[in-house]
Amino acid sequence: MSNKGQKVWKRAKGVIPGGNMILSKRPEMFLPDKWPAYYSKAKGCYIWSLENEKFIDMSLMGVGTNILGYSNDDVDKAVIENISKGNMSTLNCSEEVELAERLIDICSPWGEMVRFARSGGEANAIAVRIARAASGRDNVAICGYHGWHDWYLSANLQSKDELNNHLLDGLDIDGVPRNLTNTVFPFEYNNIKQLEEIINTKNIGTVKMEVERNIPPEEDFLDKVREITEKKNIVLIFDECTSGFRETFGGISKKYKINPDMSMFGKALGNGYAITAVVGKEEIMQNAQSSFISSTFWSERAGPTAALKTLEIMEKTESWKTITNKGKYIKKCIIELGVKNNIELDVFGIDPLPSFKIKSKYSTEYKTLISQELLKKKILASNSVYVSIAHTDDLINRYLDELDNVFKKIRDCENGMDINQLLEGPVSQVGFKRIN
Amino acid sequence: MSNKGQKVWKRAKGVIPGGNMILSKRPEMFLPDKWPAYYSKAKGCYIWSLENEKFIDMSLMGVGTNILGYSNDDVDKAVIENISKGNMSTLNCSEEVELAERLIDICSPWGEMVRFARSGGEANAIAVRIARAASGRDNVAICGYHGWHDWYLSANLQSKDELNNHLLDGLDIDGVPRNLTNTVFPFEYNNIKQLEEIINTKNIGTVKMEVERNIPPEEDFLDKVREITEKKNIVLIFDECTSGFRETFGGISKKYKINPDMSMFGKALGNGYAITAVVGKEEIMQNAQSSFISSTFWSERAGPTAALKTLEIMEKTESWKTITNKGKYIKKCIIELGVKNNIELDVFGIDPLPSFKIKSKYSTEYKTLISQELLKKKILASNSVYVSIAHTDDLINRYLDELDNVFKKIRDCENGMDINQLLEGPVSQVGFKRIN
Repeated sequence: MSNKGQKVWKRAKGVIPGGNMILSKRPEMFLPDKWPAYYSKAKGCYIWSLENEKFIDMSLMGVGTNILGYSNDDVDKAVIENISKGNMSTLNCSEEVELAERLIDICSPWGEMVRFARSGGEANAIAVRIARAASGRDNVAICGYHGWHDWYLSANLQSKDELNNHLLDGLDIDGVPRNLTNTVFPFEYNNIKQLEEIINTKNIGTVKMEVERNIPPEEDFLDKVREITEKKNIVLIFDECTSGFRETFGGISKKYKINPDMSMFGKALGNGYAITAVVGKEEIMQNAQSSFISSTFWSERAGPTAALKTLEIMEKTESWKTITNKGKYIKKCIIELGVKNNIELDVFGIDPLPSFKIKSKYSTEYKTLISQELLKKKILASNSVYVSIAHTDDLINRYLDELDNVFKKIRDCENGMDINQLLEGPVSQVGFKRIN
Repeated sequence: MSNKGQKVWKRAKGVIPGGNMILSKRPEMFLPDKWPAYYSKAKGCYIWSLENEKFIDMSLMGVGTNILGYSNDDVDKAVIENISKGNMSTLNCSEEVELAERLIDICSPWGEMVRFARSGGEANAIAVRIARAASGRDNVAICGYHGWHDWYLSANLQSKDELNNHLLDGLDIDGVPRNLTNTVFPFEYNNIKQLEEIINTKNIGTVKMEVERNIPPEEDFLDKVREITEKKNIVLIFDECTSGFRETFGGISKKYKINPDMSMFGKALGNGYAITAVVGKEEIMQNAQSSFISSTFWSERAGPTAALKTLEIMEKTESWKTITNKGKYIKKCIIELGVKNNIELDVFGIDPLPSFKIKSKYSTEYKTLISQELLKKKILASNSVYVSIAHTDDLINRYLDELDNVFKKIRDCENGMDINQLLEGPVSQVGFKRIN
């Protein structure tokens, strides 16, 4: 199965260090040597491999980019119309102004000005630059995943484990300048005491965090973060690159009625086209004017065009409600499958992005088994589902049925069967490793 | 003229700090209050304003992105075909592998591995990360413009004038962490003594430079840079974002027969679509595997698709020869116009990117006058021409004729006429200034 994709992947590893541009899409993260690796076509929640085999994507959906399904007709049409009239010119594209106004409306009352980039890492770096300029203090407290840039990874200069619960365990960060040691300080989600301690001792000017990822806020955690940052005149940035537009029309912060000073949006904003945004209060955002932040390709037209149409369709279809409900159903069913098969598992993540982990010393082997067995049923699956509106109830139930079958095998393994007898290839990689 | 564009620009300044995403496209940089500011359509070397007025672009051509002219039919067709089949998915796009192999071929013998990004600033930051990881030394010597990221702008932390001759005079860099002071050291182009001094005293691990921008290398400058970096085991990076594919099929370094350890390409690589590349020797590039460098949108499909088709057309049409010859002609004619009108001027830049400056205390006023008068003739012009293959001899001569007419007025001003009587609005901005 999928030899063509694996052949291209072998070529890729010879010409691209690590094989591709994003860790999450490495075939080794799913099913080494067998994962289809490359696509020829994607539509709705279907992906066609290089052999034109059709798969249902019950996994990353473009790493969270495609809430409206792959290749949404209306978004594609808007983009194609605009690039046919020129994707770039010496003059600016007015779509970026419309999009800024649209996001300000969505982020009312706190969102007043906007800057755009074309990747989430860049949006994060822009936000931190502006926040540092605004606060006049360089030090940042962080919680969550905020990209690959120096400012963020520098947290691991203090010790290699600082980013363990935020990005990946023992992450390699060679080439991040050592002078940045002690400029970025991670804090645990829901640990307000730890954040207060960092704020009180580290001259923090910016707090940057994911509003909610694996677990919900407890004991008014977000309220307390807002309160202390306001009191200490600290810029509060919510990174909504992943959470944005999944549970509300805008940031997930809306759900908790907490207004940040800035937020980033990315991933789903352009339904598969590259566009990311930094939204913030005017008094903060205007500090961009005393710092050089400028890039040619941030002025291309496809990104804001895609975002405008995506927002229009999201609002019309109330897509966040659909995917939240579907995700809730998936969570409920996976919990039930665990009970039914007597398997202990953690089910976590925001509702439209359910994840699970089987509590066993063989959890990685089981994850690999799930990818292996579901691939045979033409389903791309792992341990997370980025739900899209294209995931019909029928497809979801088909996925759950197949998962049930694998859970039965896992039950057998927990009862003593050798999991390695079931695996037809190497176990999937966990985290960031060198590959050859 | 062009009220619609100026109206949108006023809205833009209220919702986007600085009004847009790239300094070079601010209307204030050309003709404040009058520049059309926004486009509806672009094709060949023509741009249509929001009122559908048609202009010839004799200025930035998308800030150097469109060597094949705007909206090239074949490039657009390839992109549209691929995005119709899905711009993004959980699986990778094989176009990135093909493009990596293509660039390795073009950068033979030194280019062996490739990473892609979607902006020039990002490509620069990736290259510096990898070079720092490879050399094990954080300090970088730079010459030229290398983007907006912390690593580069930090040069101005030592003093606000460090980047004067590389980017802009007295550049504001608020929000760049102060710990980065004394990690980046600018050197003057053609000043090998200064570079040697920096290398000998600053523990430099990376030299990063534009191969050629305003003036050609003198006294084997590039050979000497290569020699000392090799001797001191320093990674030599050529930033070819602007110079690439303008004088050769690949880096301008080919012209001088100097092989770097890494190069960046951007701007023209995708003929108006966002795609940038870092190419390098395998032993250097593999250091990316011990540093987390990963981004969702670096895996979209439009960028590498556009680049593959752009490279194909460039190679077939030998576009670099065409634009070099056209640029040489423009340079020659502007020099002649200066002589004819008895105006002292500097003509500089690589041949396919001619620039000029009138030697006078009113040089900025004259630059503004050129934009003002040529705009009346439906020509977008300033003091640089990014030549494309779409610039026909007829259009170039029409531009030169109009320039001749303005040079006559400039002659009158140099003879005592008040330039401010001729200007119908404010003088253009120079450099990086706050705008409201």
